[in-house]
Amino acid sequence: MPAQIPADSVGLVIPQTAAFPGDLQLECGRSLPGYTLVYETYGVLNKDRSNAILLCHALSGDHHAAGYHQLEDRKPGWWEHLLGPGKAMDTKQFFFVCANFIGSCKGSTGPASINPETGSPWGLDFPMVTVRDWVKTQADLADYLDIAQWAAVIGGSLGGMQVMQWSMDYPERLRNAVVIAAAPKLTAQNIAFNEVCRQAIMTDPDFHNGRYYAHDTKPRRGLSLARMIGHITYLSDDAMRSKFGRETRGGKAFSFGFDVDFEVESYLRYQGSSFVERFDANSYLYITKALDYFDPASAYGGNLAEAFTPIQAAYLVISFSSDWRFSPERSREIVQALYTCNRDVSYAEIESTHGHDSFLMPIPQYVAVLRTYLQRVAEEIGL
Amino acid sequence: MPAQIPADSVGLVIPQTAAFPGDLQLECGRSLPGYTLVYETYGVLNKDRSNAILLCHALSGDHHAAGYHQLEDRKPGWWEHLLGPGKAMDTKQFFFVCANFIGSCKGSTGPASINPETGSPWGLDFPMVTVRDWVKTQADLADYLDIAQWAAVIGGSLGGMQVMQWSMDYPERLRNAVVIAAAPKLTAQNIAFNEVCRQAIMTDPDFHNGRYYAHDTKPRRGLSLARMIGHITYLSDDAMRSKFGRETRGGKAFSFGFDVDFEVESYLRYQGSSFVERFDANSYLYITKALDYFDPASAYGGNLAEAFTPIQAAYLVISFSSDWRFSPERSREIVQALYTCNRDVSYAEIESTHGHDSFLMPIPQYVAVLRTYLQRVAEEIGL
Repeated sequence: MPAQIPADSVGLVIPQTAAFPGDLQLECGRSLPGYTLVYETYGVLNKDRSNAILLCHALSGDHHAAGYHQLEDRKPGWWEHLLGPGKAMDTKQFFFVCANFIGSCKGSTGPASINPETGSPWGLDFPMVTVRDWVKTQADLADYLDIAQWAAVIGGSLGGMQVMQWSMDYPERLRNAVVIAAAPKLTAQNIAFNEVCRQAIMTDPDFHNGRYYAHDTKPRRGLSLARMIGHITYLSDDAMRSKFGRETRGGKAFSFGFDVDFEVESYLRYQGSSFVERFDANSYLYITKALDYFDPASAYGGNLAEAFTPIQAAYLVISFSSDWRFSPERSREIVQALYTCNRDVSYAEIESTHGHDSFLMPIPQYVAVLRTYLQRVAEEIGL
Repeated sequence: MPAQIPADSVGLVIPQTAAFPGDLQLECGRSLPGYTLVYETYGVLNKDRSNAILLCHALSGDHHAAGYHQLEDRKPGWWEHLLGPGKAMDTKQFFFVCANFIGSCKGSTGPASINPETGSPWGLDFPMVTVRDWVKTQADLADYLDIAQWAAVIGGSLGGMQVMQWSMDYPERLRNAVVIAAAPKLTAQNIAFNEVCRQAIMTDPDFHNGRYYAHDTKPRRGLSLARMIGHITYLSDDAMRSKFGRETRGGKAFSFGFDVDFEVESYLRYQGSSFVERFDANSYLYITKALDYFDPASAYGGNLAEAFTPIQAAYLVISFSSDWRFSPERSREIVQALYTCNRDVSYAEIESTHGHDSFLMPIPQYVAVLRTYLQRVAEEIGL
């Protein structure tokens, strides 16, 4: 937390909770006996409830998109650079909502929550949840907040997949869809990385088949490895080169041993071990599976344009040149499918050396594109 | 093993052993109190001992480059496609030598060998070995075989790094250097992948700080994860797409659980678990460190051309379009440095979808380039 909250921050934010007691039917065929969403809002909902924008978070993200929970917070929300009064996502114009999705571990119902049938944490008995399920719960939240139509739904990475699903499942409930650094489905390589992460977690002896809560432990080694692998895929080769190169830690000579020699090793070890403190390993398993399963075209013989037929929203698609997790090529597949079914789509490919992580960063061209687009949205709905 | 050994195979091969009892001074400052190399040879050394070619193997490779050890062998040596009578590397013309490098686990001295001082396996007390050390031991082997000069030294990946080191350290002892799918040093991303692999092994509770031999166990989980990560980097995204796509195993519907859904998951798990049966985890640690440390330009302020100044050998450099572990760009750095110091260098960038693994495959253009080059070598030395 800075000495004083910057004027362009939303400032202190209090997470809210919405409980949905009814059975939630899930895509996997099972149901969840009620669930809770934790969410945050920024800005003010206008009188005709037309200025609401839903934000969808990514794998390790949460509902805390901007601002601070306490003055002591070391860091603000994950989209602080882009979201706040006068920023590209302007809280003086729009009312933003961001909810932690189910299956995660930041307050919404997930595998670490209590299974009402057993009185113990769900663990791997938690039903599999999918991008479609998340969108369904977000529609429940929209009803709860009495928002008939979002001015826009915006998300990066896995968040972008939720945006696409929104526009297919509830076409009339969003005016605009902003899909950033996403893909219409994972490649075999993407799935392969996810699988290695899951194997790292599940083969950790402290995993206890997902019941580690009862053993007063957690699969720290496995989750840490998963995060290290993730970080390699979030950064581009170039970003790693410019950030670490082959620098040795503290400029020291080679150890000729197995301690840290290079800065990049030190960085990864830190990222791995700090993630373990703030994320639940079971959630990591569930969310990576949701990523693997996402493939809206599959029900249409692989034809994405057909899957997109219901879409009414105007689209903004953004990709980043150095993103090799979800490369610009993958975004162009989305754009192409939207063209094919004659939808309104704008596309921006942003030059960036930051890899997949670019979607979290205040890259000027990216910020400008988002600002301009949302300005047009504001004008269209008469804000 | 096929029903009958193909006519273009070198056939049955018997590995040989050479013991070097003297102290081996290593780059790390320590020494090894004698060492053993296991090696194989293919073809016949000619009278003036001018037709010998040294082959250098990669991370998980060994001395068994071609042929079969027994009629029951399921697979021949790792370069069977390229090495044999009438093949690109023609055993009717040349005498090939391939030695397992020290630190590995296929018969040459390594961390699983007995430390004569303690009577127990070395484990992590084994001294760190480097590419330069390997080349030194291979020069000892050349002396032992009474080969004053190699007609060529050839290697792919880490093997290519040994080739470069040979041409710098013993310029007069090789006429040609063939460097395939290699790089003049690892990038931060390469090091990062290696580090995650090492962490997977070293945090496995069965690792016992490298003394797992005494515990009658091994870090199976960690080594398996390391191999899975490795395989992702050996294959290109395209290769994975064409090999597995998003196919589910047996064409089944999603499990909505954590068993194998996709073919690529099944492939990786198999690759991981089978590797554990044939490779020593400590060797994996040592060899990845040797990879990380390799950087001949570092002693010259990063100027590779200066590091290359001693080189006398003619070079053939080969890269593969879809190799993202050591991309064509990295090979071009080698070529550029050789140009800068006015050395004889040919360069071929081969179109391939097989990623880094291409160097092991009989890709026609690759085979043709290698065959043509070695034909010229044969002519030059009057074979």
